[in-house]
Amino acid sequence: MTVLEKINNPQDVKNLSVAEMNELAQDIRDAILNRVNTIGGHLGPDLGIVEATIAMHYVFDSPKDKFVFDVSHQVYPHKMLTGRKHGFVNPEKFHEISGYSNPAESEHDHFVIGHTSTSVSLATGLAKARDLKNENYNVVALIGDGSLSGGEAYEGFNNAAELDSNIIIIINDNEMSIAPNYGGLYKNLAQLRETNGQAQNNVFKAVGFEYCYVEDGNNVEALIAAFKEVKDASKPAVVHIHTLKGKGYEPAVADKETYHWHLPGFLNSEKTCDAGETYTSITKDFLLNKKYQNEPVIAITAATPGVFDFNPEFREKMGANYTDVGIAEEHAIAYASGLAKNGAKPVLALMSSFVQRTYDQMSQDLALNNSPATVLIYWGGISNADMTHLCTFDIPLISNIPNIVYLAPANKEEYLAMLEWSYAQNEHPVFIRVPAGELVSTGKADTTDYSILNKYKLEHSGEKVAIIAAGSFFALGEQVRAEIKQQLGFDATLINPRYLTGVDKEMLESLKNNHRVVITLEDGEIDGGFGEKITRFYGNSDMKVLNFGSKKEFTDRVPLAELYNRYHLTKELIVKDIKEVL
Amino acid sequence: MTVLEKINNPQDVKNLSVAEMNELAQDIRDAILNRVNTIGGHLGPDLGIVEATIAMHYVFDSPKDKFVFDVSHQVYPHKMLTGRKHGFVNPEKFHEISGYSNPAESEHDHFVIGHTSTSVSLATGLAKARDLKNENYNVVALIGDGSLSGGEAYEGFNNAAELDSNIIIIINDNEMSIAPNYGGLYKNLAQLRETNGQAQNNVFKAVGFEYCYVEDGNNVEALIAAFKEVKDASKPAVVHIHTLKGKGYEPAVADKETYHWHLPGFLNSEKTCDAGETYTSITKDFLLNKKYQNEPVIAITAATPGVFDFNPEFREKMGANYTDVGIAEEHAIAYASGLAKNGAKPVLALMSSFVQRTYDQMSQDLALNNSPATVLIYWGGISNADMTHLCTFDIPLISNIPNIVYLAPANKEEYLAMLEWSYAQNEHPVFIRVPAGELVSTGKADTTDYSILNKYKLEHSGEKVAIIAAGSFFALGEQVRAEIKQQLGFDATLINPRYLTGVDKEMLESLKNNHRVVITLEDGEIDGGFGEKITRFYGNSDMKVLNFGSKKEFTDRVPLAELYNRYHLTKELIVKDIKEVL
Repeated sequence: MTVLEKINNPQDVKNLSVAEMNELAQDIRDAILNRVNTIGGHLGPDLGIVEATIAMHYVFDSPKDKFVFDVSHQVYPHKMLTGRKHGFVNPEKFHEISGYSNPAESEHDHFVIGHTSTSVSLATGLAKARDLKNENYNVVALIGDGSLSGGEAYEGFNNAAELDSNIIIIINDNEMSIAPNYGGLYKNLAQLRETNGQAQNNVFKAVGFEYCYVEDGNNVEALIAAFKEVKDASKPAVVHIHTLKGKGYEPAVADKETYHWHLPGFLNSEKTCDAGETYTSITKDFLLNKKYQNEPVIAITAATPGVFDFNPEFREKMGANYTDVGIAEEHAIAYASGLAKNGAKPVLALMSSFVQRTYDQMSQDLALNNSPATVLIYWGGISNADMTHLCTFDIPLISNIPNIVYLAPANKEEYLAMLEWSYAQNEHPVFIRVPAGELVSTGKADTTDYSILNKYKLEHSGEKVAIIAAGSFFALGEQVRAEIKQQLGFDATLINPRYLTGVDKEMLESLKNNHRVVITLEDGEIDGGFGEKITRFYGNSDMKVLNFGSKKEFTDRVPLAELYNRYHLTKELIVKDIKEVL
Repeated sequence: MTVLEKINNPQDVKNLSVAEMNELAQDIRDAILNRVNTIGGHLGPDLGIVEATIAMHYVFDSPKDKFVFDVSHQVYPHKMLTGRKHGFVNPEKFHEISGYSNPAESEHDHFVIGHTSTSVSLATGLAKARDLKNENYNVVALIGDGSLSGGEAYEGFNNAAELDSNIIIIINDNEMSIAPNYGGLYKNLAQLRETNGQAQNNVFKAVGFEYCYVEDGNNVEALIAAFKEVKDASKPAVVHIHTLKGKGYEPAVADKETYHWHLPGFLNSEKTCDAGETYTSITKDFLLNKKYQNEPVIAITAATPGVFDFNPEFREKMGANYTDVGIAEEHAIAYASGLAKNGAKPVLALMSSFVQRTYDQMSQDLALNNSPATVLIYWGGISNADMTHLCTFDIPLISNIPNIVYLAPANKEEYLAMLEWSYAQNEHPVFIRVPAGELVSTGKADTTDYSILNKYKLEHSGEKVAIIAAGSFFALGEQVRAEIKQQLGFDATLINPRYLTGVDKEMLESLKNNHRVVITLEDGEIDGGFGEKITRFYGNSDMKVLNFGSKKEFTDRVPLAELYNRYHLTKELIVKDIKEVL
């Protein structure tokens, strides 16, 4: 019987010897590797935090003492020790337990968490509520060094320091974000590591925290000693632990970025072969080309270069023409605005779910200043993602900000034409919703002049029903057109709107001549989105309008087919709805 | 002839003696006082930064060297030295020059700026573009100590520190935000002031900046010496200057909060008398009442307590049940979520324009976790505000986030009933759009059960036309109803929707029986807002729908009457539009 098999709750951890805890650490690592190799997930962060999690449960008393895991990329060991090990040792149950902190699973989790830099603020709220109610226990936030680059984390530290009571912040310093860290703060973390925590200049002490350092953050005894030291502290305290990301799996130690999160099958498979041309590959080619032409191009990411395949090779080639700003989307937007205003050519790449981490900067720093930056939004669309990583809200978020031009290409040629136009122009902040999924090519260069804003493309002129199908749902629009032909026998109109931020009044007006129904298709939330602008245009007319997209809701790992069914996003269901209004 | 009269551009400053610069400082102060006393504006920040601005223009060469003023509350002296003194000395021209940084006015301004904590990021972009283009000049950001509490500022510092070239950040430390500072960082600033900049623990040095300190930040010679020291530096540098907010006008020094920004007339008028009952006064009474009942209430602001009249007296009474988190709206939302999850009762007050500074936290930290916090949104609505301070975007921003209930009371009684309900319930994050303007009372307690979501109130049942008038535009709805009666002779229906986040399907369905037109009125942007949800509901029907609200645009100090005219927000124009579709 393994030690892990004997652990059903945190109480069981408290009865272990150090030797048993070290055995337990190995059991947990085996389970992590097994799960990630089977269904994919976060590998490096979880492997690195095993001992610290054991020590936390050994010293503190969860759930009375409350743990908050930042971004919760490192929550697997905690889950295994809090009654959820079946989700890691029993392949049939892997999908029952999510990869993120989730109160619906256990009283040991207090928040659904999946975005970065939030833990200290959340924990400060827990601690302040405790104080207001005159209760007595520890509140512990665990935050990685990477997450410290986000502004919300700083705001949290700044405020936690003012709590005149217990809050313990464990800084899991594994010298990495997803990619390498970037930012002045990391100079101080390095100094602290080099001096075994003794450096005179210490940002945490400077803002008022008690501070202690654990050089071997994978040594369970050292961790237990440090945690005991701060347990029940009556002042805000930081425990800075130095851990090894990927510990226990050599490839994950050697290549921390690749193994931060991994697809299944890495234990037994060869490297995957080149995927051929993709939206990411043509984007990289575009950027490198500009660089080779000595253009003042600058590619910017916010700590997730992997999403765009901005791999180390690409980064090296770009050199000074690349900035990874850290998990700092607010800065990224303002930085891009400054670059654009001073004549450089910023191209900022963000994942749809993370563009949410900046809004005021898009509005004030960028749009109000009409700074001609290009922002690429990746992965926008309905998916089976975790509820923390949905990519359905970017159209409502971005498209209602004045001055921004938000484009939705339907294929490679449109995308490249839009990118070239956006790069060259000096009038507008331009966002482009890079299509998710496989590259679609028409084989025919797009020569559209995108400076004529809000001009939709009439792909096929028909009658009765007009289908306005945006971006990655353009193909669905084609399917619906074919289905109408087949089921209803007439030739519907198909429009590729290309612009998400405005309506083509002339074209919409002309549809009134021989159409009774307009439908809109967008790969995202309907509320506040693109389709409603079309519906509003026709509000004073006899035109019937149906909007298709996702509902205003958080969905959690729901299979895509089920969502498409729920939202009527199949050609059959759409034509059924059309028939009802025709 | 005053010295200011001789200054037409920064070059003229360079020819002054120190004595003349001190005279100039006095001239500038006189002009600031005169302007603010005549048309209102920022007083304390501008009075405090006079000498530093003179020294900046003396040492650096604007516009070649580029200045970025954070939040630009302190930009008046800069404007006076860069060809815009007529906006400060000539009352007839006061309105020609805005109170904020504005490139449309002068080549010495590089961005429109009015929200806080953005300057370092913007300046980092300017500097990086300079480097990419192999140009050579200074980029200087001026940021107040208060602005340092915002996460974007931290992200900016963290990134600026990585620039291997010139960027100079002047920290204007006047020991105040708008209200007193809050946050651990201020402990370090205090240490630095106490040690004349020599404290070993120095957050700026810690993250990699060269650092120098100027104890008398109102001494033009000392400032010139310090600025000369860093001019043309090839590394990121911080100049920490200690200034006196309000200097030169004793009341502004004695009461820094009141005189941060002031209405006109303070030089010659008595204190205004008590305004009687207002939405702010009843909110404060509500909060104090909860506190006196020993409830775990906690009122939260993000550095703008004055907007809600959370004055020092109120703050003192609230004691530990009040937190001003600093200019940290992201933290404020996550903090509120943590408080609510742990059984406290957070009531967070934000101004509409500043709720924009958090979105992901509303979505992830609050809504996804269904934390039952109450958020009050003030000043939401169309106004003659500066383009940086528009309050028209909060409905699209907030109402398309799943799980959030956004309520729009039309009067005092509804507001109090909503507040009581929100406070007591444990199911939803609830936002309430506190009506702007004078308090409206029905005199009759509202006994609605707000837990029945999206149930609109039928205020008057009529025919043909239904008016759905939300929140502060409910009164406009009443006017339109009366105008229809008068002009068209029939009795229109009037609905108070109360909920901005959903549609009352049953009521909307029932309108189909005897109505042909529905109009929606909302005091904010139509795109992505409330009305479009109504329009979409009727998309498949014969109902005509007209949405009224503001256009998707940034407007700058446009008189309200002009905007109402532009947007057809008068009873006459609305009825005219209705007639066209009837």
